[in-house]
Amino acid sequence: MPSLKPTDPTPPADLGALVALVADDLKRVNQVIIDYMESPVALIPQVAGHIIAAGGKRLRPMLTLAGAKLCGYGGQRHLALAAAVEFIHTATLLHDDVVDSSDLRRGLATANAVWGNKPSVLVGDFLFSRAFQLMVSDGSLDVLRILSTASAIIAEGEVLQLMTANDIATSEAAYLDVISAKTAALFAAAAEIGAVVSDRGKETAQALHDFGQNLGMAFQLIDDMLDYSAHQAELGKTVGDDFRDGKMTLPIVLAVERADAEERRFWQRTLEEQEQVEGDLERAVALMRKYGTLTATLDRARSYSAAAIAALAQFDDNPARRALLETVEFCMQRGY
Amino acid sequence: MPSLKPTDPTPPADLGALVALVADDLKRVNQVIIDYMESPVALIPQVAGHIIAAGGKRLRPMLTLAGAKLCGYGGQRHLALAAAVEFIHTATLLHDDVVDSSDLRRGLATANAVWGNKPSVLVGDFLFSRAFQLMVSDGSLDVLRILSTASAIIAEGEVLQLMTANDIATSEAAYLDVISAKTAALFAAAAEIGAVVSDRGKETAQALHDFGQNLGMAFQLIDDMLDYSAHQAELGKTVGDDFRDGKMTLPIVLAVERADAEERRFWQRTLEEQEQVEGDLERAVALMRKYGTLTATLDRARSYSAAAIAALAQFDDNPARRALLETVEFCMQRGY
Repeated sequence: MPSLKPTDPTPPADLGALVALVADDLKRVNQVIIDYMESPVALIPQVAGHIIAAGGKRLRPMLTLAGAKLCGYGGQRHLALAAAVEFIHTATLLHDDVVDSSDLRRGLATANAVWGNKPSVLVGDFLFSRAFQLMVSDGSLDVLRILSTASAIIAEGEVLQLMTANDIATSEAAYLDVISAKTAALFAAAAEIGAVVSDRGKETAQALHDFGQNLGMAFQLIDDMLDYSAHQAELGKTVGDDFRDGKMTLPIVLAVERADAEERRFWQRTLEEQEQVEGDLERAVALMRKYGTLTATLDRARSYSAAAIAALAQFDDNPARRALLETVEFCMQRGY
Repeated sequence: MPSLKPTDPTPPADLGALVALVADDLKRVNQVIIDYMESPVALIPQVAGHIIAAGGKRLRPMLTLAGAKLCGYGGQRHLALAAAVEFIHTATLLHDDVVDSSDLRRGLATANAVWGNKPSVLVGDFLFSRAFQLMVSDGSLDVLRILSTASAIIAEGEVLQLMTANDIATSEAAYLDVISAKTAALFAAAAEIGAVVSDRGKETAQALHDFGQNLGMAFQLIDDMLDYSAHQAELGKTVGDDFRDGKMTLPIVLAVERADAEERRFWQRTLEEQEQVEGDLERAVALMRKYGTLTATLDRARSYSAAAIAALAQFDDNPARRALLETVEFCMQRGY
């Protein structure tokens, strides 16, 4: 872990306030998830259950639930829609793991490692379809528009990431485009839906959209930074996966930008030509430290988290708002 | 090709009447397809264009267009929805080719053979999302329900096919479940949508649904039969792909059911243990002929095509009805 010290003396944040806020709702969302991943084809709930039960944080559906609470929503529609959000997320995870040939996710074997790529592709398609069935049952064309658009953007982001992989000419702007599409779009949609079901008008929906978008950017930047952190091992992840895959995340993009001729050859060999030997990951991290690119990544994340916080300015102080603010803190503090 | 002679002395049918009926509409559908596969991410229209331009018959969107004409529809909604149907079909083809590791489709290299599996998975997801965006723009929750349900069923059928692969205990009923889901469901949905946009009521929608469902069953049965036909080579396909993949299609299912002890060991070795040597495909075809299972498959297809024709009984004679009847003939005659 690079020597990044918290600049902010706030006490450690966790998702406690958010989890407490939506605990009852989330239980019911989990039931919807279990009901809708059912199929007479036994392998489908097996594969879907494997990845869904693997214990993700349910951060995206919680944004829908908390967004609805923030808007004072008193109905039930947010439950099925939060499940739809989680299904879309899970479908993209299943497909991601195939695309990345990943063996581990959250410390557990990935579905593709257990069952092979085929069920992962097809069960992803199934969950994606189920998400739309849930939205159709809800009946809001606005929600359908938001999530079908987000889904198209996510796929675009994933393809863009594929195209920038191993390309050391990738710019910071191209990287930001990738994460805006592949990650932030669903955070934005998830939060926005909370406002849409509450019928609080366009401005409120836009505020929650902006909150989610900026939180998603901060979240992904910290995630990309953490890939080079020793903390990773504690989270059941491998350090340096992105480096091995030649993924052009911001810590690398900035280090390549600042590289001298010899360092440039190092990045060419390890990332473009994908010829990596023992010690290369350590050298890569050393170069990131030399140019402070992990700190710079954290700085960018901090800007986005400030924008997320600002997006909530129009809402009165209440437990939902406090929980969402703490969620931003939590995302940032993972980076310290 | 087994010695299957046409029992019906009708002149050769083709898709001419259907193509003529919807030619103008189809041009506009193709424009919608081109417009909606656009993306700032250049690889997406490349991959999508590759498979869409590869010149499928556009059978499914033509069912939507002809279904609308059969119902006397005079509007424009069927155009975008036919494009949505084709996008869903194309997305499943892209994912199928990944799942089957196919190198050829319609005589051309598959997208996964050209670009690898990753873009195929992700561009499939993109096209799937685009299909839903098209439906959302149309604004009919009925259409969204029909196609999201069909998509879930297709994925179930694909997984079920995966589970029956290499399993020589697969029954005829299990096989029919597979093709009903993976193929007929989209034919049914495509045709039904033609009635839905026409607002002709549930009975008409059900009739077109039944027409599509039975046509799809006949179509897939003939397709599975053709996999063992010398005609395949003319279509730019390889003979015996299903056998090599261990796919339990009806000609095999029935031959295994009737096998003696020695033949059973042959099927066990070639399909279950996937140990195939030179001459095995020829032996497999010889066993299918011995038990007449290709003819039996054709007979089953004939029953479904009769049911498809019967489903059109409630409609008056007109060019659309004649074109749809000829489409059934065309599907069947591929089998002779």
